Amino acid sequence: MSFELRPYNPPYLKSEALRTAPDARMAAAPADGVAPDGFHAMSIFPEYFKIGGCWHLAEESRMDCVPVWEDGCLHVKEFRHLKKGDAVVCGRTENGEEGIYLHMNGFTETGRAAENFAFRQGRSRETSFSRDYDELRDLLRYERENGRIVWVLGPAFTFDSGARDAFSRLVAGGYVHALMAGNALATHDLEGAYLGTALGQNIYTQESVPNGHYHHLDTINRVRGCGSVKAFIKEQGIDDGIICSCEKHGVPYVLAGSIRDDGPLPCVIGDVYDAQDAMRAQVRTATTVICMATMLHSIAVGNMTPSYRVMPNGAVRQIYFYCVDISEFTVNKLSDRGSLAAKGIVTNVQDFIKQLAEGLGV
Amino acid sequence: MSFELRPYNPPYLKSEALRTAPDARMAAAPADGVAPDGFHAMSIFPEYFKIGGCWHLAEESRMDCVPVWEDGCLHVKEFRHLKKGDAVVCGRTENGEEGIYLHMNGFTETGRAAENFAFRQGRSRETSFSRDYDELRDLLRYERENGRIVWVLGPAFTFDSGARDAFSRLVAGGYVHALMAGNALATHDLEGAYLGTALGQNIYTQESVPNGHYHHLDTINRVRGCGSVKAFIKEQGIDDGIICSCEKHGVPYVLAGSIRDDGPLPCVIGDVYDAQDAMRAQVRTATTVICMATMLHSIAVGNMTPSYRVMPNGAVRQIYFYCVDISEFTVNKLSDRGSLAAKGIVTNVQDFIKQLAEGLGV
Amino acid sequence: MSFELRPYNPPYLKSEALRTAPDARMAAAPADGVAPDGFHAMSIFPEYFKIGGCWHLAEESRMDCVPVWEDGCLHVKEFRHLKKGDAVVCGRTENGEEGIYLHMNGFTETGRAAENFAFRQGRSRETSFSRDYDELRDLLRYERENGRIVWVLGPAFTFDSGARDAFSRLVAGGYVHALMAGNALATHDLEGAYLGTALGQNIYTQESVPNGHYHHLDTINRVRGCGSVKAFIKEQGIDDGIICSCEKHGVPYVLAGSIRDDGPLPCVIGDVYDAQDAMRAQVRTATTVICMATMLHSIAVGNMTPSYRVMPNGAVRQIYFYCVDISEFTVNKLSDRGSLAAKGIVTNVQDFIKQLAEGLGV
Amino acid sequence: MSFELRPYNPPYLKSEALRTAPDARMAAAPADGVAPDGFHAMSIFPEYFKIGGCWHLAEESRMDCVPVWEDGCLHVKEFRHLKKGDAVVCGRTENGEEGIYLHMNGFTETGRAAENFAFRQGRSRETSFSRDYDELRDLLRYERENGRIVWVLGPAFTFDSGARDAFSRLVAGGYVHALMAGNALATHDLEGAYLGTALGQNIYTQESVPNGHYHHLDTINRVRGCGSVKAFIKEQGIDDGIICSCEKHGVPYVLAGSIRDDGPLPCVIGDVYDAQDAMRAQVRTATTVICMATMLHSIAVGNMTPSYRVMPNGAVRQIYFYCVDISEFTVNKLSDRGSLAAKGIVTNVQDFIKQLAEGLGV
Repeated sequence: MSFELRPYNPPYLKSEALRTAPDARMAAAPADGVAPDGFHAMSIFPEYFKIGGCWHLAEESRMDCVPVWEDGCLHVKEFRHLKKGDAVVCGRTENGEEGIYLHMNGFTETGRAAENFAFRQGRSRETSFSRDYDELRDLLRYERENGRIVWVLGPAFTFDSGARDAFSRLVAGGYVHALMAGNALATHDLEGAYLGTALGQNIYTQESVPNGHYHHLDTINRVRGCGSVKAFIKEQGIDDGIICSCEKHGVPYVLAGSIRDDGPLPCVIGDVYDAQDAMRAQVRTATTVICMATMLHSIAVGNMTPSYRVMPNGAVRQIYFYCVDISEFTVNKLSDRGSLAAKGIVTNVQDFIKQLAEGLGV
Repeated sequence: MSFELRPYNPPYLKSEALRTAPDARMAAAPADGVAPDGFHAMSIFPEYFKIGGCWHLAEESRMDCVPVWEDGCLHVKEFRHLKKGDAVVCGRTENGEEGIYLHMNGFTETGRAAENFAFRQGRSRETSFSRDYDELRDLLRYERENGRIVWVLGPAFTFDSGARDAFSRLVAGGYVHALMAGNALATHDLEGAYLGTALGQNIYTQESVPNGHYHHLDTINRVRGCGSVKAFIKEQGIDDGIICSCEKHGVPYVLAGSIRDDGPLPCVIGDVYDAQDAMRAQVRTATTVICMATMLHSIAVGNMTPSYRVMPNGAVRQIYFYCVDISEFTVNKLSDRGSLAAKGIVTNVQDFIKQLAEGLGV
Repeated sequence: MSFELRPYNPPYLKSEALRTAPDARMAAAPADGVAPDGFHAMSIFPEYFKIGGCWHLAEESRMDCVPVWEDGCLHVKEFRHLKKGDAVVCGRTENGEEGIYLHMNGFTETGRAAENFAFRQGRSRETSFSRDYDELRDLLRYERENGRIVWVLGPAFTFDSGARDAFSRLVAGGYVHALMAGNALATHDLEGAYLGTALGQNIYTQESVPNGHYHHLDTINRVRGCGSVKAFIKEQGIDDGIICSCEKHGVPYVLAGSIRDDGPLPCVIGDVYDAQDAMRAQVRTATTVICMATMLHSIAVGNMTPSYRVMPNGAVRQIYFYCVDISEFTVNKLSDRGSLAAKGIVTNVQDFIKQLAEGLGV
Repeated sequence: MSFELRPYNPPYLKSEALRTAPDARMAAAPADGVAPDGFHAMSIFPEYFKIGGCWHLAEESRMDCVPVWEDGCLHVKEFRHLKKGDAVVCGRTENGEEGIYLHMNGFTETGRAAENFAFRQGRSRETSFSRDYDELRDLLRYERENGRIVWVLGPAFTFDSGARDAFSRLVAGGYVHALMAGNALATHDLEGAYLGTALGQNIYTQESVPNGHYHHLDTINRVRGCGSVKAFIKEQGIDDGIICSCEKHGVPYVLAGSIRDDGPLPCVIGDVYDAQDAMRAQVRTATTVICMATMLHSIAVGNMTPSYRVMPNGAVRQIYFYCVDISEFTVNKLSDRGSLAAKGIVTNVQDFIKQLAEGLGV
């Protein structure tokens, strides 16, 4: 089986209703960081706005943010980035009557409504996941050549040596184009490379080593002493693990700070809104996003990932979004996004990643 | 790495304390199914009883059951199997002072107390499981030749085509010596073979088929019409799935009834105490037990599986016990058994079984 | 706020389609316990069958069982109860075209389709439950006088002294008309009354008592020695707990056996199909069913409880069905029943029952 | 029952071993934010350091941070707060041999080792919690007069009207001395006060209101327009909810930012390390900490809360720490802190808080 992108069915903008629709109303932001009353907020779907008699698709959308008309282009901005006077589109209908048209079925095959509904059902430990693995494997092979795969990792991901190795092989194999995580993931991973443990436990045998509870602190302190992860890797001759693989293969990674951090490592972004901006910078060019074992980061990235991307050549394609977690609660929280493209897999991420790497032959 | 049985360190019965210990006290069961006051109840560990001045090991033990001296031998009986007048050992100490000695460390390496403690810690989604997979693979290779592997399966196990196939290959490969499950597991599995679905959903694509909610009933009814699973398999030319593999390779399976059953299938044992007896008959000769995705059956089998087995040649060896489940609650409920041999793996059993089959090369 | 039964809107049987519909087809069961090909299986909704030109409502329905025409009446039978030659209704459409009409919206208010949909959504720990508590309190007050409330309890329910007392007060207060559980619930509860512990832990302080692991066995053995729970209560002067309250207030309880049972207690039904029959006997007259902290029993009872009951005076009313469990997986498994009447509450049952008792003023 | 503080048993510093112990070794921090090799890291227990021949207790401790001797006093600093040249205590033993003494049993009753062990066991949905409620009620009554109670709330806490009201009554009743949460909790709570919903669902009826998905954005935008929560409350005449209660009763609240935030509200601290500092400022004077329904914040606060506090009069007392969550995974993650004082309660926080308020009579 091989993967094929489902073509985008654009809305029929020449329909009577849309052709005769009024221009979208705009109002000026009354202050920095504040939207005008009646502002429109984006969804994850492609949305078109009639401005100057023409329909414009908002590129690089983001749910719950506002469309701003600037330099002949629609920018989707977080509230905190609004500037006083920004021209914000207003209106809360989506069928064109206010010059706003939300296109929900751009990637749906005709006559498959029933199936679509089925896909949106809750997923549980008892869902059959074999096809998901097969589809994901084919998708990643396609995306390695044609897209951009962004991974989001929870802190415990590197506690297991096999999972850590599998992910490192995915990086080396070209299946990872960006990584987003927190201080803890990077710390545990570097601890594994530096001292062979994670939180003081051997990552293969699970044996606790004497004074192992110092290991993550010693790791953090050494990296801080070196001034950067890169310098630490060089100084210590680190040669394995996720972060090291990213450094070796030039894969960008964004580490967002959190209130539970020790340290932190030098490259962690302490301001969460700066971190959001850095994450969204990676998401803007993503075509597939895979979140593993982190509710916080999964929701954060889910919130900033639309269901589509406008490619450099102007083509509109789907963004695939996976959430892998052992908890149905987390998986279903994400898949409420209502998109065909959002898929949940309920399992331990250790097994998920080892099986995926096996399937991809890395 | 290859597996080696840890040798049994028998207790030093010539120690002053044990040598001079009194005979164990016995009392007659006052009525059928009733033990005398002060009855002794078994643990999962090897227990020795002094009778006629000699220490006797209870073979084929079972937790929470009572030791009965009969025909010069210790039989461990469920309360319901006691007969009026049975000679039941009484006493609730375990250090020999009443002629009862519980030997907790028969399989422990000297000086490894700390490690043992670590093994008994709770396991969670964040535990590193790579070594467990490796050890289990080596164990199963050993047991295929030298032991007897009993599997316990929850009802949803066959909802996924890949997991179902992987388990069938394990059966064909000689890694399954007995199977214990319920009516639902067998029904779903036979529905997959007969109609390609489980509860009406395609076991690969997850697509619901029209009137699919009739599938399990049609399957049950057809099997009932045939009079037996074997006859159904023959009539319909069934050629895949777990139950079919067991039939084909002569692997015995015990299906215990439950109050949630439809049907049931002809071979399901409706009386739960008869079912317990049939299950224990399989456990008596088991050397490794693996429970997957069923709290009810896992606890039932856990309760009837001791930590050791006396082999036909008189040697005492360990019984290995695994519990694989996506819920920490279930896994930790089982691993409270306090035995080195009980290991929990927290994951989706679909991934577990596919990875295990892969590792075993079947 | 006070509770009012929503009136039943019967189907309009005089509509052209239903008036001209053919009689339902019947076929004889080919053997004991086997339905004819094409048998019809029941849902939880009211279903009408045209026989002899008249529409008949199946009373005392049960999902996944088959309608049998016998003595001028429709009996809904489990497969295992079919007798060779029974006249089984066949057909798998539900709109009348084969003389079978399923009436899904008998208790729906007109124009409330949207709300109904909302009610069927998955429930999670984050759902707001205050209204559910209020509604349930009002419902139970109504049912105490006008209905019949059946409770289903998981084994751990009596581990907490407060929960155990609260439930006992509900029994004394007239809010419990029947109880369904297993051997373990009754054993733990009687252990609490007899020895003050559950599985050897004090049910208030949680302290483990010496040799406490003998307590449940001593309890079981004593009850077995007495010959019955009633005799045990009398002999020991037991005066508290759930089972004792049921005995005192003449509330029938059904204890179904399972493969994990020790003992069992004398009144436990060992054959699960006999147990199903005993449970269904209670369900036939139930108007509200509340399942707490047991997946096995909740599914079993859920399967045998229709969404409606035909009262002695011929009126059709709704059956209310609640499932209370700390696991979303269990709660949502039950609420997939697709009925307005099935409600899930995600919490620890200890808190649920204490709060409910408080609200009811008992 | 009424609460009594367990007196602190200080270590016997005049023992031969401690009297003759050497001074603790110190080394200068080699750079800002970097500790010297061999730095000592703190635990949650009282730790004494021998400096200039005298033993000094570190006040205001924090796990995994380093003790710095400054101005004749021990300051426990996060790595990021170290200044080049800071005198950091070094050494990784805890028995005095390096001038460092960790006092683990300061609040333990003599001879109760076994019970203590029991308290540290994992807690599950099946643990009996009645005594915990009683103890907590008594503790809070004591702390209202004599201590300082800090609450930590997860984002979904105010989705339920009853829980929201109960907590507001606790604030009004004097049981809340500080609140820590995130942007989402405050947003949902203010949305409830402003528009009667949480994420667009009525917080009592659960009904979704039209365009309700705009409600949290409208709330955030309005507060941002007002410039502060206080101004918003005044402008809109807000009169209910958690945040409003805190404002009304002068209870300080710290809102820490996270990468999943919309908005954010004006008072949210965007830099997580500044947020940590603000949170620790509250924890420094806390005597009881209660975390509800948030893994992120619970771990963050758990990490910064020692097991003891030195009161203004020099007395050492215990800090009580509770973690209430519906997931055993979260609860047990916290209670691994190894302290008598850390207690987990496994339930839905809605029920927990309503029951607690009821018990306290507010």
